[in-house]
Amino acid sequence: MSKPTPLSGYPEFLPAERAVEREVVSRISRTFELHGFANIETRAVEPLDRLAKGGEVDKEIYVLRRLHADPDDTAAGDSGQSRQLGLHFDLTVPFARYVLENAGHLEFPFRRFQIQPAWRGERPQEGRYRQFNQADIDIVGRDELPFHHDVEVVRVMVEALDGLPLPALSFQVNNRKLIQGFYRGLGVPDVPAAIRAIDKLDKQPADAVAALLVETAGATPEQADTCLALASIRVADTSFVETVRGLGVEDELLETGLAELAAVVDGCADVVNDHVTVEANLRIARGLDYYTGTVVEIFMTGYERLKSVGGGGRYDALASDGRTTYPGVGISFGVSRTLVPLVADGVLAGSRAVSSAVLVALADEEARPAAHELADRLRRRGIPTEVAASPQRFGKQIRYAERRGIPFVWFQQEDGTHQVKDIRSGDQVDADPESWNPPATDLHQTIVSPVINSLEQPS
Amino acid sequence: MSKPTPLSGYPEFLPAERAVEREVVSRISRTFELHGFANIETRAVEPLDRLAKGGEVDKEIYVLRRLHADPDDTAAGDSGQSRQLGLHFDLTVPFARYVLENAGHLEFPFRRFQIQPAWRGERPQEGRYRQFNQADIDIVGRDELPFHHDVEVVRVMVEALDGLPLPALSFQVNNRKLIQGFYRGLGVPDVPAAIRAIDKLDKQPADAVAALLVETAGATPEQADTCLALASIRVADTSFVETVRGLGVEDELLETGLAELAAVVDGCADVVNDHVTVEANLRIARGLDYYTGTVVEIFMTGYERLKSVGGGGRYDALASDGRTTYPGVGISFGVSRTLVPLVADGVLAGSRAVSSAVLVALADEEARPAAHELADRLRRRGIPTEVAASPQRFGKQIRYAERRGIPFVWFQQEDGTHQVKDIRSGDQVDADPESWNPPATDLHQTIVSPVINSLEQPS
Repeated sequence: MSKPTPLSGYPEFLPAERAVEREVVSRISRTFELHGFANIETRAVEPLDRLAKGGEVDKEIYVLRRLHADPDDTAAGDSGQSRQLGLHFDLTVPFARYVLENAGHLEFPFRRFQIQPAWRGERPQEGRYRQFNQADIDIVGRDELPFHHDVEVVRVMVEALDGLPLPALSFQVNNRKLIQGFYRGLGVPDVPAAIRAIDKLDKQPADAVAALLVETAGATPEQADTCLALASIRVADTSFVETVRGLGVEDELLETGLAELAAVVDGCADVVNDHVTVEANLRIARGLDYYTGTVVEIFMTGYERLKSVGGGGRYDALASDGRTTYPGVGISFGVSRTLVPLVADGVLAGSRAVSSAVLVALADEEARPAAHELADRLRRRGIPTEVAASPQRFGKQIRYAERRGIPFVWFQQEDGTHQVKDIRSGDQVDADPESWNPPATDLHQTIVSPVINSLEQPS
Repeated sequence: MSKPTPLSGYPEFLPAERAVEREVVSRISRTFELHGFANIETRAVEPLDRLAKGGEVDKEIYVLRRLHADPDDTAAGDSGQSRQLGLHFDLTVPFARYVLENAGHLEFPFRRFQIQPAWRGERPQEGRYRQFNQADIDIVGRDELPFHHDVEVVRVMVEALDGLPLPALSFQVNNRKLIQGFYRGLGVPDVPAAIRAIDKLDKQPADAVAALLVETAGATPEQADTCLALASIRVADTSFVETVRGLGVEDELLETGLAELAAVVDGCADVVNDHVTVEANLRIARGLDYYTGTVVEIFMTGYERLKSVGGGGRYDALASDGRTTYPGVGISFGVSRTLVPLVADGVLAGSRAVSSAVLVALADEEARPAAHELADRLRRRGIPTEVAASPQRFGKQIRYAERRGIPFVWFQQEDGTHQVKDIRSGDQVDADPESWNPPATDLHQTIVSPVINSLEQPS
């Protein structure tokens, strides 16, 4: 086998880097669970006819086929092979299918979180990968889902991400009812076209978008200006309500949207801080057609080039089997999109490459059974411990620990006493295997943030 | 969207069942980490030319293609798409590739654990799925790997699985040097053919295997009988050494194999018990060609029909780039293969479908902010809590908790005091949000084993 080369678009972490990702997943999972969210895991594949809906993402779908497909596969009544299967490109399509398939066994409103890879055959670039992990929370109801759950999912995701050593994050929130009602009340002829035009504001200058509003949405130049005025409103409190009213548009749907957006911003007021902010940003539309109310995108300070590192919103029909409709609200956080660039930039690093906090040194091979016994005593008290692979001279064993980032080396003396050396300071002290503990920060692999302080400017 | 039907070979768990799998993964991960194993995660795909090696598994490989493959993909220098990719069918092939690719960044011996899905397009049956989670531990060296690591991986996996509420498990261990040396010393002309024949003992009667030994391995009938005598030896201590010697075969490799196997059985003597046993079973061969010493298969009492639920062994060349060889020893545990049948049979169940230990009841919608504040106070002390979705009458809210398995309902009284009701006993008591705690067993979702005692017969 020749030396393999990395596959473009399929980033993999070295062990210390993977420890960063595991810790991030563990911390956000803990927050989701504290809020009553249940974890599920769905299969990686869905029938192709459920994945491909004629949208832009279709051409990025990976389709599966058996290397040597067996002609009698379908003859055997194997329904799994009679339909083409593809890898899921997000966690929403499989979740909607799971809800429909298991509706009789679920209790609604159903809170779930799901942290899994998804696959998209897109051109790889920083933050965009062909396989990527993401973390989704959703609350789904049967027939109805009260609005207060919109506030809940935003709060939970704010709290989850606030617990991570990331650069400052900004949740930018809007409401589709607000913008639809505004355009309708303003008299713009083609509301969906107006939303699509405004959605281009992050790529095109304002006058180009104004022209687009006139051309594609049938707006007058004055209406286009008012649409741009709405889109320029961005504020971290509920003062946007009066600003919008100052634009002189009246519409019932607009009023509902204003009230909902104000409720989200207000409802998060006690959980935001310098690290995670929540702002009303009235240009956020999210292109996806299925959003019907709250929409949110998450941006990371210093990493605006990644576009959003997460997002989501309210959809009145997450799933429907024709008789029953399941409305939902959810937010997705791009684990790989966020961590791969941060790790590559050295913003986040793992504290060490192995889980061991202690290396038990070996005087000679005959000492191995006693070393294993000692290691087991430490492990029984929860201290990750490994025994030296070979009885090299102690200097070499200490360097063995050093290269792995193992902070402590344990020596069993001939007289039955024990000493432990902190190889960073060089301090070596007597230790009792039944009571010695490493500092809590050394016990497990953890995240170190070499440059986080320089990036963490409140936005 | 019509109601979807399950895909054959792609089992999915309901939320309470998924909690069983998460807890199993969490407990074994903790054991692996206590022993210094580092977690890694590899991408789901490998270049097809690294997966397909002309073996039986080839036809089970799933190959990927983009739904609308883009002709300029390769023109853009995108090496990822210029080679065909397939989903990995185990975690060993990707690990070997990861070791070669990252050898310059890893420290050897390298202990890693990896818990991920793999895919095989085989005919689905109980314990055999097209997507399945497995948990692998391996220790890999550069150029050399001392034998004591064979003992270590078996011990670690025994300890990991002993911590799970599974039916009794039996690790059945053998050594390829032992059987190869034995056949060679006995004078069987075709040793590999003899191993393949003996490997069929679990499917065919002894006389059929004897005939096969004569036909395919060129053994005399007497040699075939002696091979079967060897294969019939199965014992939980090192007495097999004398029994084998009693068969009168002498060979240097046989002696090495006997010593190694005895060291594994002996080395596990202090970790085995009624729940997990380690036995020398001299018919275990494991068909795979790359095993060169220790081989192990894990069987579960009452579930012999699943065949092994795990296995592994020593391979002198896990990976090689032509110049450097990386020997390894590892064991894989079939997470899905074990849990899907146990959950289906009701042997294991999740304690509840949601993570919440407490439901905060709502007197009316106006009480929601106070309820959220109370919930946050409980969460800050690590108690998973949710607030009632709507202010139905309390009887309905209690049933809401009951259906989800939430054990406690919290009531905020109008006078500012609090009461909490254990809805299983009906007991309702005064409670202080700053000090009340549920019993530890109620705090998180956990595994309950309704019928485990009836199955757990020491084998």
